[in-house]
Amino acid sequence: MEKLIDFQTDPSLYRHWRVEYDGDIANLFMDVDENAGLFDGYQLKLNSYDLGVDIELADVVQRMRFEHPEVKVVVLRSAKDKVFCAGANIRMLGGAAHSHKVNFCKFTNETRNAFEAAEVDSGQKYIAAVKGACAGGGYELALACNYIMLTDDSSSSVALPEVPLLAVLPGTGGLTRVTDKRKVRRDLADIFCSTEEGVKGKRAVKWKLVDEAVPNAKFDETVRARAAEFAAGSPKSPVATGITLGPLKKSINEDGSLQYSLLEIAVERDARRATLTISGPTDAAPLSMSDFEAQGDQAYLLRLARELDDAILHLRLNEPQLGLLVFRTQGDPELVLSHEAVLLSNADHWLANEVLKYWKRVLKRIDVTSRSLVALLEHGSCFAGVLAELLFSVDRSYMMEDEFEGDNRHLATLTLSDANFGIFPMGNNLTRLQTRFFGTPESVDAARAHVGEGLEAETADDLGLVTMILDDIDWEDEIRIFMEERASFSPDAMTGMEANLRFAGPETMETRIFGRLTAWQNWIFNRSNAVGSEGALQRYGTGLRGKYNMERV
Amino acid sequence: MEKLIDFQTDPSLYRHWRVEYDGDIANLFMDVDENAGLFDGYQLKLNSYDLGVDIELADVVQRMRFEHPEVKVVVLRSAKDKVFCAGANIRMLGGAAHSHKVNFCKFTNETRNAFEAAEVDSGQKYIAAVKGACAGGGYELALACNYIMLTDDSSSSVALPEVPLLAVLPGTGGLTRVTDKRKVRRDLADIFCSTEEGVKGKRAVKWKLVDEAVPNAKFDETVRARAAEFAAGSPKSPVATGITLGPLKKSINEDGSLQYSLLEIAVERDARRATLTISGPTDAAPLSMSDFEAQGDQAYLLRLARELDDAILHLRLNEPQLGLLVFRTQGDPELVLSHEAVLLSNADHWLANEVLKYWKRVLKRIDVTSRSLVALLEHGSCFAGVLAELLFSVDRSYMMEDEFEGDNRHLATLTLSDANFGIFPMGNNLTRLQTRFFGTPESVDAARAHVGEGLEAETADDLGLVTMILDDIDWEDEIRIFMEERASFSPDAMTGMEANLRFAGPETMETRIFGRLTAWQNWIFNRSNAVGSEGALQRYGTGLRGKYNMERV
Repeated sequence: MEKLIDFQTDPSLYRHWRVEYDGDIANLFMDVDENAGLFDGYQLKLNSYDLGVDIELADVVQRMRFEHPEVKVVVLRSAKDKVFCAGANIRMLGGAAHSHKVNFCKFTNETRNAFEAAEVDSGQKYIAAVKGACAGGGYELALACNYIMLTDDSSSSVALPEVPLLAVLPGTGGLTRVTDKRKVRRDLADIFCSTEEGVKGKRAVKWKLVDEAVPNAKFDETVRARAAEFAAGSPKSPVATGITLGPLKKSINEDGSLQYSLLEIAVERDARRATLTISGPTDAAPLSMSDFEAQGDQAYLLRLARELDDAILHLRLNEPQLGLLVFRTQGDPELVLSHEAVLLSNADHWLANEVLKYWKRVLKRIDVTSRSLVALLEHGSCFAGVLAELLFSVDRSYMMEDEFEGDNRHLATLTLSDANFGIFPMGNNLTRLQTRFFGTPESVDAARAHVGEGLEAETADDLGLVTMILDDIDWEDEIRIFMEERASFSPDAMTGMEANLRFAGPETMETRIFGRLTAWQNWIFNRSNAVGSEGALQRYGTGLRGKYNMERV
Repeated sequence: MEKLIDFQTDPSLYRHWRVEYDGDIANLFMDVDENAGLFDGYQLKLNSYDLGVDIELADVVQRMRFEHPEVKVVVLRSAKDKVFCAGANIRMLGGAAHSHKVNFCKFTNETRNAFEAAEVDSGQKYIAAVKGACAGGGYELALACNYIMLTDDSSSSVALPEVPLLAVLPGTGGLTRVTDKRKVRRDLADIFCSTEEGVKGKRAVKWKLVDEAVPNAKFDETVRARAAEFAAGSPKSPVATGITLGPLKKSINEDGSLQYSLLEIAVERDARRATLTISGPTDAAPLSMSDFEAQGDQAYLLRLARELDDAILHLRLNEPQLGLLVFRTQGDPELVLSHEAVLLSNADHWLANEVLKYWKRVLKRIDVTSRSLVALLEHGSCFAGVLAELLFSVDRSYMMEDEFEGDNRHLATLTLSDANFGIFPMGNNLTRLQTRFFGTPESVDAARAHVGEGLEAETADDLGLVTMILDDIDWEDEIRIFMEERASFSPDAMTGMEANLRFAGPETMETRIFGRLTAWQNWIFNRSNAVGSEGALQRYGTGLRGKYNMERV
């Protein structure tokens, strides 16, 4: 799978999804084109999906929020007869490299989280209207919706057959959502997850696997009624029109480096490193949200979020050898704050809310990116407000102290804003500063007392906001040594270490999905019982069951 | 490693540990005999450890509570010059099978948890008095203590060098305790965990890696002072004498089956199944705690806990092919309750407290045992109180309904007691019933209303306390089919599924260690960067660094 994967798409390019808008209700049809897989070697039968299908779905969910803010209820259904969705395509999984499987699951998890949170964040409630077989990743799609309706007939069921059939886990949140979201009793969950054929109708309701089972003859009508009811009861204020998300300006060079409009990515393959340099805004901030709306997708903070989001996904899937992502900024910190201020002071405006919630998702995507992350706070940088939040996402940050010879850029500063104290929670539901200062909330308060100040190195260090401050004499050597050393470590150990150190404190369903569930799945994705030549994933479809080493670990 | 591992030992057999008792203070010396490894092929140099060393430590910790209840402070130190403890032995790890590594880490984790909890549970506070190098598992030993003192000299440091040196994680709670217990800032933790040589003296204090750094010349004296101070400040009531934990009565047959005095284990290798049958008490309960003390280690509930504990460990390490553990009981439920009642009504008595806390640990050990667990509530059974708790530990429970032809045992009942509602929390800090009914606390209340009643099948089922009730017609077939099916599934997928389904709801440091950290470590233990022929674990000591595939996953 050496093909460059592009995460940008738009409705005119969709092969697998279709949306019909009907006032405040959107009908989203899954209609996978079996001949339009992202890679060769498999057909996407029975509404099974691969990364390409999910890239379109993520695009649908994103556009729903920005382009169709009038929508209050999204009804997800299948356009195929007899099948809702058969889950991730098994032949694709069987043929995919370990790293592709893991990153595929991560992206699909992020997309599920994005539409699961749409009700709370954006007032868009997702209903899964399930007719026909709904298995594995198909049921996990439904699980991530806010309400599940199931046709009560002999051919419709929900199932998580991964364990008995494929010797892997339902890896897109299934196990976690069954116990923690749906609150299915653990022994019933045990039966459910080890029963290939799944559970139908009234039993599915009784076990809490679905919210409602409706006779076939009344299904469509009941779904319509439920959608109308939820739309009518929605607290979301009416919004007339959205903004358009146009194509990103982006070019990729032969050496792997990328240019976006506000983000430049230098790739050094020998050093296994990508350096992401963010440019601060150059124009004055919009004066109001109507100004912001007029700028639309060209408004600085929205444009930057989209570029950064795309860049992270590109690096994850297309550049697995780059183990270190270095974040830099250059620009005017005050100007960053003024661009942010119009959003913060209008947070109840639909578009301000969407942009801020989008930044929340982008920052979370960075948190769970399994590359070593470092930020360099150089002279001339603009780590302020939401951009300062990057400093608390990374594994380490280095800051320039005092003047550097021959460097006439403004002294490096770090500027906090109110944005660093609540609106961008991590997956663990703490802010990044609360996580950083886990157990010492007084350190968070101390930092907060400096909101709006351009903190120079010594103060930033005293407040514990940066990892290390270095002067002209030490800067280059220290950073070079760190980067060389980091590039020499085992990538697997780094992934495991970072996944443990980044999320101190409480866990949530989200961190459990990315931590506990994902880690076990990754383990199983390395075991011959699943992926070996006689393993269940490889043998699927051959009529032979997997041949297992029966030792328990 | 085909040798049968015995988890029973006593001080007369210790090769690696020595305890000097001094009133309410115990001085525990680690003095590993390098020639007394559990297996051939490695030497336990520099106070490094293998499972055999940890089995002795677990015995020390257990006897400290039962045999030396006068102890309020335990000072853990090294009897070697220049080294505190070098951690798990690398050659042992390099040579061990995957399942041994995983089960070794699980047992050491349980032992760490046992002495970490000794302060809260038993009023025994552990001080790590660290002189010399304290690396990897050595620092993890210290981390699990309640207070860490470090000699402030040029040769004493604490370190977690696993990631840079061995390409594996500090797998005995290290990463989790650094961030969640010690509350080390995540970027400093990142530096610490990727620095082979570790951190010394004052910096170790500043980073919160240790509680106190003390100059060499004053170290012993300060440790004595601190121990005396903690002992003087201890809220633990004085206890004159403990009881003796004598050897367990146990015999193992050639076919693998085992007999203890109250527990019989039938092994069916073809079916990959072990059936554990617990006998209820036959004698009347002790009338008071002095009666109980007089019975000592022969008191029913203590004897059973010890036998069950030993059996679980035996099955984990010595019988990896047995994927299904079946729990049965036979006896008088009322008599079980009366044996339990003397403990419950004297919970502030030191020995009652210790026995109950021990049951808490045994039940937790069952929770994290990666075998499919099932309970059969047959006629004649005595699942009452603490024994009923087993029903909520297992993945599924099946209960006999109505009379069975030719079976004149008393009808199957399930009897709850107050013990099921608080004193046996799981690792997630919920009771097993709260976990079972996660999200519906009213179901817990409904169950509680029936405390003391012998609930027959239909009622138990209505209350959601059992997975399935079956009458004479269905019992045998249903259970046979379930067991055959379960035995045919991939053991890895079972392990992953059960690890996710068993722990709904909140996470704690403990569940994070057994979930997130362990799962990532298991993944890494399957990756060639660590365990391959050119991986870091295999190459350790050869002068060559590991050769890594640099792809990030």
